[in-house]
This record gives sequence, C-alpha cells and structure tokens, in this order.
Amino acid sequence: MNALKSPYLLFLGQGDNPLAIKTSRGLAQWRPDLCVGETGAPLSLGLKKMTPTEGAKAGAKTFIIGLASAGGRLDSKWTPTILAAIEAGLDIASGLHEKLSDIPEIKVAAQRKGVKLHDIRHQIDKPSVGKGTKRSGNRILTVGTDCSVGKMYTALAIEQEMKKRQFNVDFRATGQTGIFIAGEGVPVDAVISDFISGAVEQLCPAHSSDHWDIIEGQGSLFNPAFAGVSLGLLHGAQADVLVMCHEANRTHIKDMTGFPIPDLKDCIETNLKLARLTNPDVRLGAIALNCRVIDTDLANQYCASLSNQLSVPCFDPMIHGTSEFVDTLESSQT
Amino acid sequence: MNALKSPYLLFLGQGDNPLAIKTSRGLAQWRPDLCVGETGAPLSLGLKKMTPTEGAKAGAKTFIIGLASAGGRLDSKWTPTILAAIEAGLDIASGLHEKLSDIPEIKVAAQRKGVKLHDIRHQIDKPSVGKGTKRSGNRILTVGTDCSVGKMYTALAIEQEMKKRQFNVDFRATGQTGIFIAGEGVPVDAVISDFISGAVEQLCPAHSSDHWDIIEGQGSLFNPAFAGVSLGLLHGAQADVLVMCHEANRTHIKDMTGFPIPDLKDCIETNLKLARLTNPDVRLGAIALNCRVIDTDLANQYCASLSNQLSVPCFDPMIHGTSEFVDTLESSQT
Repeated sequence: MNALKSPYLLFLGQGDNPLAIKTSRGLAQWRPDLCVGETGAPLSLGLKKMTPTEGAKAGAKTFIIGLASAGGRLDSKWTPTILAAIEAGLDIASGLHEKLSDIPEIKVAAQRKGVKLHDIRHQIDKPSVGKGTKRSGNRILTVGTDCSVGKMYTALAIEQEMKKRQFNVDFRATGQTGIFIAGEGVPVDAVISDFISGAVEQLCPAHSSDHWDIIEGQGSLFNPAFAGVSLGLLHGAQADVLVMCHEANRTHIKDMTGFPIPDLKDCIETNLKLARLTNPDVRLGAIALNCRVIDTDLANQYCASLSNQLSVPCFDPMIHGTSEFVDTLESSQT
Repeated sequence: MNALKSPYLLFLGQGDNPLAIKTSRGLAQWRPDLCVGETGAPLSLGLKKMTPTEGAKAGAKTFIIGLASAGGRLDSKWTPTILAAIEAGLDIASGLHEKLSDIPEIKVAAQRKGVKLHDIRHQIDKPSVGKGTKRSGNRILTVGTDCSVGKMYTALAIEQEMKKRQFNVDFRATGQTGIFIAGEGVPVDAVISDFISGAVEQLCPAHSSDHWDIIEGQGSLFNPAFAGVSLGLLHGAQADVLVMCHEANRTHIKDMTGFPIPDLKDCIETNLKLARLTNPDVRLGAIALNCRVIDTDLANQYCASLSNQLSVPCFDPMIHGTSEFVDTLESSQT
C-alpha cells in the first residue's frame, strides 16, 4: 500500500462510545508527535479540538477515520466532515470494511481536489505465495493466547525501548491501528488465504544483520476462528524471537462460546514447534502479561512467578516497560 | 455459490500439455456420468468429441473450462469456442483467476443469451467468522504431508465406497476440480483469511447423526506457504476422523526449496493436536499412500508396514480402494 502522509488529524465521530475510537487512541498513545489534533465530539483524546480547515493550517496531511463501527460501515453522518476535510486538502484514510471510494460524493470530491483516499483494509500490494526462504536480519513476533491481549502494544513498547537505545529497528504493522501508527503495513486478516505467509514475507523482507523488525501478531493458534491467520503470519514472519502475550485472569477465548484460554506452556510450545518450520532457531524471548484487570502488587507477583517458571523476562509493557527484555537482546548481540 | 447445472461438456483447449487438463481429467475420472463429451484437440480424455452445438443437443447444460493456464489467465484463443458455447445456450464455468465476466464480449454474449457465467474461484457466499460451535453429523477430512499428494482423490474414493454401501454421504469440495466434480463448494484458498474456518463451517454444516461429510483437504500444516489455509480448514471442518495422505518416495515439499517432507508420525500428531481444539474426539482413521512412483509389490509392502506401525488401515485408493477403511466406519457405527 501507499504510505500515509503525516501528520494526522484524528476524526472521533459524533458518538459517545469510547471503544469506538480505539484506533485513534492507539495512534495518540504511540505516535503523539504525528497527531496535530482531533475533530469530533463529545469524546476526546486530550488533543486540541480543530476543524479540518484548522487542522490543515496546523500542518495535518491526512484525516484519519480511526473509528470502529457496527459491521465496518461508514456512517453517512460522517460524510459532511469527510467532505470538509477533502475541501481542506487533506488525504483521507479509513480502516473500515466499507470503502471511501464506494461513496460517490466522497470519490468525486477527492478526484476534484486531487487528494488520496486510503482504504487501508483494501489496499494490499499484489500478493505473492510464500517461499519460506531464509532471510537475513532479525525479527521479533508478538504471539498470543487470544485476540486482544496486547500484541500490538507489546510490539510498540519493544520498538520504543529499542529506539531509545539506538537499535536499528522497525515496527511492522499487520492490523488497522498498527497501519495508521506505522503509516504502512499489511492488513493480514484481509489478505486472500493463499497469500498470508507471502504477504508477511513482503512486509518484513531480508535486512542487514544489525536490523530488527518487530512484527505485530494477530489472533492465536488457539482461536477457532482466526488460527489460520496466526499460523500463516508465524510462518511468514520467520521470527528469531517470539514474545508470548497473555492477559491475566482471562479464562475464555474472546467472543467464542466454550473455548478456554490455552495453557500458557502448551501455547508457547505449540507456537515454537510450528515456527521452527521456517526458522529452526526460533526461541521464546519473553512473556508480556496484560495486567489491566489486576492490581499492581498482584501484577508484580504474577510476572515474577511466570518469569521464574519459564526462565524469560515477564512484564506488563504498560507497567514495567520492556527494558529487562531489551537487555537480553543487547547481551545476545555482543 | 450457485450450484452448476449438469451434465457438462469439457473444454480441453488447443494445447498439448496433459497437465493443463488435470481438472477435466478429475471430472471424467470421478463423474463420468456427468460428462457428455469433450471439445478441443489434440488432447483427449476418451470422451466423445463434439462441438458446443452438438454438446447442447446431447443434453449438456454447462461448458467447463477445466484448464490450468500460466497465471490463471483466460487465453484469448479460447474466446471463439466460449462464444460458440454461449450461443448454443450453455452456461460457462471456469476455475481460472481471470474472470469470464471481465471479458466484455463474453459478458455481453452471456447476458444477451441469458446463460450464466460461473467464475468459481470468485463466487464465495458472504462469509462469516468461524464460531467453533459443536455440530451434529459425522465428518471426515483428508489432510496431508504436502500439496498434491491425493487428498481430493482419497476423499472421492472414500465417498464412492460409502455410497456403494448406502451410507448417507456427501463429498465437500474445497478446490477448483473438486467444485466442478461436486457442482458446488468453497474455493478455500480464495477466501479472505479472516473467514477461512467460517467458510468451512458453512460448507459442512450440522447434519443428522447418520450423515457423513467427506471434506477435501488443502495444503499441509508443514507447507510454509499454505499452512494457514490448512489450519483454518482443520478447525472449520471439526472432523471426527482424519485421513492422512502422503506420497511414497516424495522427499521434499512441492515447489519449495529446502523443506523436507515432515516425519509422518509427527505430521499426524500435529494435525490431531491442533484439530482437537474444535473436536476433542478427533482420531486418525487411515493413511492414504499415493504409490504412483513405486511398483505394486513395493506399494503393498509399504502399506502393510505403515498400517502395522500406526494401527490404522493404509491403502492407495487407486490400487487398493478404500474398503478396509470403510469397514472400520461400519463397525464403529454398529
């Protein structure tokens, strides 16, 4: 896909459901420097409220529709604001299923004004079938016991710490929010199934021996709906290091009836076993434990206990950061 | 997708590469009663040669473009014959990547004549995300150590034997040739990756307790390009019985560099372990050993030895048939 032009103006819509702006929240959290302001009310991410015209004046290049809606539809209530953003000369980017370019008045206005419409779930470069050929460079993949356990946040927290220490590192996005954050990526769950691992090979190609790609994982090998995506991603990533993401106290697979969260050790071993197909030297690097539903004392205890059991660092990236893990990458390089 | 109207007239093109007509060959092999004749030369499947007009007179309802071409393209040399078939009132069905409906003269002629164009790789019913909910009925899935080891032939041979014994049984197609044979199905490698297991759940829905679906497998968990498809299919199928397909003397994964064929026992155990997510009672039912490159004596020895090692029937469906395996299904029902 074409890279998005930054900085961004974030559109929060007109609703009051904070879950609906999770994509924009991720952007504001991880790339505050890319976000010049926000449009919409009553919700806020604490950025400066501005109209599209004010955003363009403040330097914004792309208007981001970082909204989750029922069925992935573009709400017709948003159209006037989108048209105003086009009129202000901003490119428009959406991660919804329904395409911007399928709405005639938006398409016509964009053509007339000469701005780009980015439907990031639909803009997939011509895919190739995976090859499995060994690639140079270093790759870390976040995997998980389930969906929505923090695979993107963990990858971004690792990238942030590695950047701070001057590693040569890139975050590689595989989902909607990640793609807005990185400005590019592959929406892997929207790829034709024959090309999953091939698309991931293109996302993180061979690189110099001092380079690290931190690849955002998707789904889980133990999620009965999405495990195929997770396995294609695992094979295509050819990761040297897996970071297993897990949520404290989650007992069942999200949105599924009757599927318990897998045993953590079994989940780790299954991921390692299957990952060895394309990288026999893959190893577990860390456990990222999402502790949002437990208190900090318990989080510290739980992490210490897992770290002890599994002999790798265990951290909640939002509480403890990732420095203990990145230390191990530094020492393995020297 | 819409079911194809039968019987069929098979189009063999104008080339001389026998591999290019593998889809039509599968149809003639497994559904000779559905094939009224063949059009094209110099290749032949031993059916009666006829023009589209003669085919229509002989009762054909659909003209099948069962050809594999470089890049899945519709060769413009075929257009006059396709137009003649439309003129004769036949529906047209193609399994190629390039769509019949993208060729203006074919599209216009079909509309004028009121016949249907079936681009079976593109006709996927609105997909749903997989649920993993336990379904009634019995399901057998053919899995494999690699692509092109005989998963479709094995499934069809099992269906044939079960039909002979009056089982209530359906073959469920997941690839181009299988879909022509069944007249319907899901081209699983063409499904958006988020929906692999959901599409397979739709392909073989809940059924009565005496009913059997024999599901055509795809790829292999050990194929670095296509394992995601295989895992989504494994989870969606919710199989009670797996039949592991393997080719005698194949040493490496097809079209891949540096990937040996997995150890058969490991491949079986990995398939069973992952299949248990959606059906904890899944079991290995048989080994189907494709013996095309070894002689019959060696085939017999090899099958006996594997059967002994793994305590299940082992057969080449084209040499031994599947009756020993179907015996075990009969005895498990009583």
